[in-house]
Amino acid sequence: MFKKGLKKKILPIAVVSLFVVGGLVGSFSTPIAEAKVRNPSNGKVKNIIFMIPDGFSSSYVTNYRWYKGRESLMDSMLVGMVKTYSASSEVTDSAAAGTAKATGVKTNNGMISTSPDGKELKTILEAAEKAGKATGLVVTASITHATPAVFASHVASRANEEDIAPQLINNDVDVLLGGGRKYFTEPLLKIAKDKGYEIINNREKLEMAGKTDKLIGLFATVGLSPELDRDETKEPSLAEMSKKALDVLKKDKNGFFLMIEGSQIDWAGHANDAAWAMKEIEAFENALKEVLEFAKMDKNTLVVIAGDHDTGGMSVGGYGKYDANLEILRNVTATGDFMESKLNADRSNINEIIKEYAKIDLTDKEVQKIKTASKPAIAINEVISKRALVGWTSLVHTGTDVPLYAFGPSSYLFSGLHNNTDLPKLMAKAMNINF
Amino acid sequence: MFKKGLKKKILPIAVVSLFVVGGLVGSFSTPIAEAKVRNPSNGKVKNIIFMIPDGFSSSYVTNYRWYKGRESLMDSMLVGMVKTYSASSEVTDSAAAGTAKATGVKTNNGMISTSPDGKELKTILEAAEKAGKATGLVVTASITHATPAVFASHVASRANEEDIAPQLINNDVDVLLGGGRKYFTEPLLKIAKDKGYEIINNREKLEMAGKTDKLIGLFATVGLSPELDRDETKEPSLAEMSKKALDVLKKDKNGFFLMIEGSQIDWAGHANDAAWAMKEIEAFENALKEVLEFAKMDKNTLVVIAGDHDTGGMSVGGYGKYDANLEILRNVTATGDFMESKLNADRSNINEIIKEYAKIDLTDKEVQKIKTASKPAIAINEVISKRALVGWTSLVHTGTDVPLYAFGPSSYLFSGLHNNTDLPKLMAKAMNINF
Repeated sequence: MFKKGLKKKILPIAVVSLFVVGGLVGSFSTPIAEAKVRNPSNGKVKNIIFMIPDGFSSSYVTNYRWYKGRESLMDSMLVGMVKTYSASSEVTDSAAAGTAKATGVKTNNGMISTSPDGKELKTILEAAEKAGKATGLVVTASITHATPAVFASHVASRANEEDIAPQLINNDVDVLLGGGRKYFTEPLLKIAKDKGYEIINNREKLEMAGKTDKLIGLFATVGLSPELDRDETKEPSLAEMSKKALDVLKKDKNGFFLMIEGSQIDWAGHANDAAWAMKEIEAFENALKEVLEFAKMDKNTLVVIAGDHDTGGMSVGGYGKYDANLEILRNVTATGDFMESKLNADRSNINEIIKEYAKIDLTDKEVQKIKTASKPAIAINEVISKRALVGWTSLVHTGTDVPLYAFGPSSYLFSGLHNNTDLPKLMAKAMNINF
Repeated sequence: MFKKGLKKKILPIAVVSLFVVGGLVGSFSTPIAEAKVRNPSNGKVKNIIFMIPDGFSSSYVTNYRWYKGRESLMDSMLVGMVKTYSASSEVTDSAAAGTAKATGVKTNNGMISTSPDGKELKTILEAAEKAGKATGLVVTASITHATPAVFASHVASRANEEDIAPQLINNDVDVLLGGGRKYFTEPLLKIAKDKGYEIINNREKLEMAGKTDKLIGLFATVGLSPELDRDETKEPSLAEMSKKALDVLKKDKNGFFLMIEGSQIDWAGHANDAAWAMKEIEAFENALKEVLEFAKMDKNTLVVIAGDHDTGGMSVGGYGKYDANLEILRNVTATGDFMESKLNADRSNINEIIKEYAKIDLTDKEVQKIKTASKPAIAINEVISKRALVGWTSLVHTGTDVPLYAFGPSSYLFSGLHNNTDLPKLMAKAMNINF
């Protein structure tokens, strides 16, 4: 019973990196050897790269493994898990989760590196800067969005993005790459130029940039395009931004602190858009590949990966079936939002649009569901999720513990179950700096 | 926003064990010290206690933390995670998951320590027995149920429980404690007596038992009562059975292999019964307390805990809310099944029953939902889950990676992400026995 040709589902193995242990899902792993790889002998931690897949839990990484047909780069780096709750709720938002991970203090949902009673909280990025290190933030959201904001600004509400932008400049974060052009006024950009920043706004200029020590790249008005919909000739990928950030930051003799966020895994979760979520994890994994190549050569770089919370209560399977069909998501080439934008006024072209962008022949019932939905994109995503057997319990975050990954010297510090507030403290300890 | 009096939710801290690190949710953990506790210096592994919380994922342990208002005993033992898929599906059943964990080989859903092509697979319990160790199985399901069965029997289908019972006796498993009286015929029990087994059938006799080396305790016709509904004077708890098993098995000079299953966490998940799930985890944790007390004194005992799969796609929060209300489940004193059994024929007493056993005042809409449901117990559980903000995506299993815990010598072997098939191989390595 439940028999199926599992092997047919596995894609040909691409050796994506030396870091993949085994390669195929199901191979016998060797934890001792892995532990040694993760912890090169006596390396000192000069640089930290903190990667945050926003809205990412064990179900995301398990589903991603089936989507890709192989282990992920994260898999060989698993060292523990992280508790995610905030000071105000069992279910955190990204502002409170980010504040915990940047400052070591729990705050209320919505607050940016500010305590529940309004005090500014020192961040690990600020501590690294004070210790003479270069600093950077790389995201696919607006650079003023909650997760990057918590590392170098302090505001009572995450909504005040106009107040966050000048603080990022004022705080002298050396590399700022992402979206959010609308929050950087002409006077603010003038100040930035006077401080020595190179300022760019498209992928072509990113390729040429980086001759100075300070770089601002704002590639979209607000957030960058979803990876599924991105025009590769105009907007850079997270991997391309990450590589450029490393090129700039590595010039600092005292080392650096870099935060890289896979911002839109969370946005896909909020839309219950399983294909978009998988594609964003792929973009995040491609950035991780660049990071690990750097860290492996450098030997004094600690890489830590921790999601801030689950989004959507995703499950692997669901709907009462002992099965999951992630492979059908490989054929989806647009987000639900994009597909919605292609529907005509009376939604008479639902079949054609879903066929074109999701390669699915809809049943009449599915067409009706999308036709009558108040939010067609959500209905499209529900139909595709049910076909892929990806379950969801919410359109917002949920509160499960999330996986914790580390690579490089001092990665052993991160073994076991941690509170999210432990992470910056352990990073300070690893770098041997005051915090 | 989202502000609430979180502290009011935390129960007074009971110091349940020396193993609780910190005690309160939110305390700063010390991973290096923990790692040392988990790995006492150079201890050899004579005994292994393999604890399986059936149907248990990171959402279960996170929700349990809020239910109890403190960290669980498992929390300080986290070392990694486990991949759970079977040979026939991304979403395993307990037979295939158990087979992987007992034999190191993936098989199809439904099969008991038999390969997809019908070959009998050697189990870690059989290997321990061959190495001269005592062996035991302790469960709250029938002792012939999938998870115990895989360790000492080989059948093509888990449904053949009549074939499993004689194999357990024939295999000379020294301690068998659980339910399943209906599968042990008089002639079979006669054979067991002739082999030297002491055979008991209630809690009182369990207290007095254990003077011999071989013990069978069958405390129910099929499964034991759910922990929420158990008559404590008649049926033993999982902790009481576990303690007695240790008392018997520790007499063997060559050491022992003991599997303890929290069988009904999974059953609660299948019913989407959040309160029952929490109570079964509590019973499992109480058994773990006995196990850790033994292991800490003994110093040559390795304890490994790994769920076999998630059940129900549980989430912490859900329903579009940034919140979870696990504390209301503390007031629930019966399973949904039990409450259903108390409804009268026209279901006119729904309000009174739910008030009595769940301390909830239902809305008219909730009453109607239960009144018109084809399965009233499931409807009751849905109402309570929505109040507690515990989300579900299924009435069967899901396929996410699950947490892996270890304590004692060689526990470091289990760090990182493993396949479920790795576990018996690592146990054989730890015990230094052929497998």
